[in-house]
Amino acid sequence: MQRVCLVIGAGAGIGSHVGSRFARAGYHAVLCRRTDEEGLNRAVAGIKAEGGAASGFLLNAVAPDTIEERIAAVEADIGPIEVAVYNLGAQVGDRALAETSYKVFELGWRLATFGLFRMASAVCPPMAQRGRGTLLVTSSTAAMRGNKGQHSHAAAMGARRMLCQSLNSEFGPKGIHVAHIVIDGMVDAPDTLGRMLGADAFQKLREEQGLEHDGLLLPAEIADTYFHLSQQHRSAWTHELDLRPFSDTPWWNR
Amino acid sequence: MQRVCLVIGAGAGIGSHVGSRFARAGYHAVLCRRTDEEGLNRAVAGIKAEGGAASGFLLNAVAPDTIEERIAAVEADIGPIEVAVYNLGAQVGDRALAETSYKVFELGWRLATFGLFRMASAVCPPMAQRGRGTLLVTSSTAAMRGNKGQHSHAAAMGARRMLCQSLNSEFGPKGIHVAHIVIDGMVDAPDTLGRMLGADAFQKLREEQGLEHDGLLLPAEIADTYFHLSQQHRSAWTHELDLRPFSDTPWWNR
Amino acid sequence: MQRVCLVIGAGAGIGSHVGSRFARAGYHAVLCRRTDEEGLNRAVAGIKAEGGAASGFLLNAVAPDTIEERIAAVEADIGPIEVAVYNLGAQVGDRALAETSYKVFELGWRLATFGLFRMASAVCPPMAQRGRGTLLVTSSTAAMRGNKGQHSHAAAMGARRMLCQSLNSEFGPKGIHVAHIVIDGMVDAPDTLGRMLGADAFQKLREEQGLEHDGLLLPAEIADTYFHLSQQHRSAWTHELDLRPFSDTPWWNR
Amino acid sequence: MQRVCLVIGAGAGIGSHVGSRFARAGYHAVLCRRTDEEGLNRAVAGIKAEGGAASGFLLNAVAPDTIEERIAAVEADIGPIEVAVYNLGAQVGDRALAETSYKVFELGWRLATFGLFRMASAVCPPMAQRGRGTLLVTSSTAAMRGNKGQHSHAAAMGARRMLCQSLNSEFGPKGIHVAHIVIDGMVDAPDTLGRMLGADAFQKLREEQGLEHDGLLLPAEIADTYFHLSQQHRSAWTHELDLRPFSDTPWWNR
Repeated sequence: MQRVCLVIGAGAGIGSHVGSRFARAGYHAVLCRRTDEEGLNRAVAGIKAEGGAASGFLLNAVAPDTIEERIAAVEADIGPIEVAVYNLGAQVGDRALAETSYKVFELGWRLATFGLFRMASAVCPPMAQRGRGTLLVTSSTAAMRGNKGQHSHAAAMGARRMLCQSLNSEFGPKGIHVAHIVIDGMVDAPDTLGRMLGADAFQKLREEQGLEHDGLLLPAEIADTYFHLSQQHRSAWTHELDLRPFSDTPWWNR
Repeated sequence: MQRVCLVIGAGAGIGSHVGSRFARAGYHAVLCRRTDEEGLNRAVAGIKAEGGAASGFLLNAVAPDTIEERIAAVEADIGPIEVAVYNLGAQVGDRALAETSYKVFELGWRLATFGLFRMASAVCPPMAQRGRGTLLVTSSTAAMRGNKGQHSHAAAMGARRMLCQSLNSEFGPKGIHVAHIVIDGMVDAPDTLGRMLGADAFQKLREEQGLEHDGLLLPAEIADTYFHLSQQHRSAWTHELDLRPFSDTPWWNR
Repeated sequence: MQRVCLVIGAGAGIGSHVGSRFARAGYHAVLCRRTDEEGLNRAVAGIKAEGGAASGFLLNAVAPDTIEERIAAVEADIGPIEVAVYNLGAQVGDRALAETSYKVFELGWRLATFGLFRMASAVCPPMAQRGRGTLLVTSSTAAMRGNKGQHSHAAAMGARRMLCQSLNSEFGPKGIHVAHIVIDGMVDAPDTLGRMLGADAFQKLREEQGLEHDGLLLPAEIADTYFHLSQQHRSAWTHELDLRPFSDTPWWNR
Repeated sequence: MQRVCLVIGAGAGIGSHVGSRFARAGYHAVLCRRTDEEGLNRAVAGIKAEGGAASGFLLNAVAPDTIEERIAAVEADIGPIEVAVYNLGAQVGDRALAETSYKVFELGWRLATFGLFRMASAVCPPMAQRGRGTLLVTSSTAAMRGNKGQHSHAAAMGARRMLCQSLNSEFGPKGIHVAHIVIDGMVDAPDTLGRMLGADAFQKLREEQGLEHDGLLLPAEIADTYFHLSQQHRSAWTHELDLRPFSDTPWWNR
């Protein structure tokens, strides 16, 4: 049995880079994403090509039992989940209230809040039994303040943040390290930012602000901080931190 | 047609006192609550006995279309809703993660977050058309920080807070005053605190900490601040404030 | 002996309007400001012309013993200070670090933080002895987040906010209501904004954003909320609230 | 010329461990503290014994010119300061307002706020000229909320936090990484906690809560996170994080 780093939401950005980072340190990376089996296989193959251990699964985080069954299967078949990463976004773009349907509002909650609650419900008991484990939760500016057009996203992320604090209160003393990571800027990731902007605008943005300008968050660098968090000694744990490019304005100044 | 103050969640505590306070100022108070028709009728009769105008409706805020239809009917039959108060709690008592079922977690969200979203979706358009209106949202400590046993409640209330900020961003400049009111202490209310503690323990608490000690939040006094918020001139609006007894410790020191 | 509302920092904006508002409610308004004896006399005369009681004193809040001696004299000669308002700003305009001298940095602290500490040290003991009193502290966006060019101002205001929380912890249970009021926008005040912008730019701003647009905070309206805070029943006190024009963007979205 | 990590406040806890951690990575550690020349020499010798480079200086951070002259001398004689650590505390123990003299209140500001301002004023210009540098600022619970008996400490630390945000706004885009590190718990350090409690109580606490219980923050572990922050790629910088033992209650739940 190998120690496992499970990533829910393992797109080509933060998710797969985090998996890859943990695999380099000897974890078996279990990557889960909803679609793009080809991309998933590529990520798994990439890790293996570097000498790491990895598995990939398609997983629809809003369908019933998916998260729960995957966690049970990983624990049974691969090894103890030492690190669980919840990396699902719930950004639906800026939408005025009138354009935010009940369905969209609820979907935001299912993706951002309820999915994390389900993951925690499934993974905290075995971790607590072992007296150790790490829950790394990707979060965003919208967890810190609501804004125009963010009715669904901010409500869902604000809930995520409060849930992380509640989980921390119950499970910190049981040896489970819960960290809420505020990604406060645009990530250089084709599956999220790239899809939202379209290929051309994304490439233009990368040339003007990303690449050698370092003005977009690089997923590989983010992954280093995720890894550091997981390795912090239990006498000195971080529950919340922010991450943004040096040239960016923090949310509280923006 | 009379100007209306609509209260969703008009139990015997904050809700009915707020209705009563606005009725004294000439508003038609429309009180809505899920159960206890007798208590509802008593509250309406109490307002009328003081010379105020009031109506009462049973309303299940988690059933489809209830909030939306009530708002449409009030606007059509009674008058323009100038003040809408969302006063539904979502406290389910302290529950460890293992004791927080998916159903309970979702119910918290339906009561605390989605119900507010539905009310706002229905009431903001007519208010925006009139260029004026007030949305007063009762909130709680759990909107500010998660805590042990608060997985459902804190997630739901954190979402409520971020939703209020998002609504404020879109609708403030359109003349709608959105206020997020953090009730950071126990309210001297038989329908909520009283029900949670049981009659005897509630009475004991009132004698030891409430009544002449003023150590429980008095709903009538809270209502005065709700009323003040609704009367603030639009050049000087408050979006967020806290309320607690003088002798109580604020959440950030507790 | 009359009950007194003492205002430290009683310029033509918030300070004198607060004094005037309390005088209308029967308090003796004691107005203190550093300079402009003529303006001070005009404010006092204005209150008296409306039938109120008022006194005015020039007071340099960074000179030793001034605040302390004034408080002692007011308590001895006029009446018990029931409400003490600390309304001194410490805005020095946007200054890069290199342009922020040690002297300017220290002056910000003396005005914004140490002056409040001195006022509290002098006025809390008699208030605590009487078991009642109110401390209203004008604060600003800079108390909530630092920003470019705000090295002195934000440090001083952040300290002010934490001091208010500390005072509240010690003196709330002793019956002293401490409120931290975040003025998060531009105030239509000739002595502060007017002086900073110059007469012409100030008038232009008033015409474009203030006056009938209500896009500048009106000091008379702010004063109404100060008064409401002072009248809150001790079972339901507010420690912190924000104030901004309806059309303005809150600091967390700006 | 060697790249330098300068530590202001290099007692036997966080300060000297941070110096030691950076020395292991090839930095020349410059340790500065006010007293205990013997302890200082021991820390320097310890680093050298491990093969690292280090220097030590006695430095009174509240005396004029001390910080400024030390920084100039280090830049001239040892090498460019790549990492500057401000690690001075300003805890004066719990003191009621009546027991907090003006002198104590001002001293808190001089240690916690003004000293950092002076360090930043001296070290940011050369860093900005080089287009790189890191400012690591040790902070505490008191920066996040005021509390009873914390009038001096909380005001000073709240100012420190706002100053860090202001510095970050101006200097982030110039390549200087400013991080505000909230130490939210007791540190297993003889020079601070040990001195405050006395030797016996300190040892008792270590036995009951620290040592193998990991319930006191270990300075060597804290130092690892300081080092990680300094190594973050500029596309993904952290401005603020918290650190506490796994078994401890975060400030927002305490």
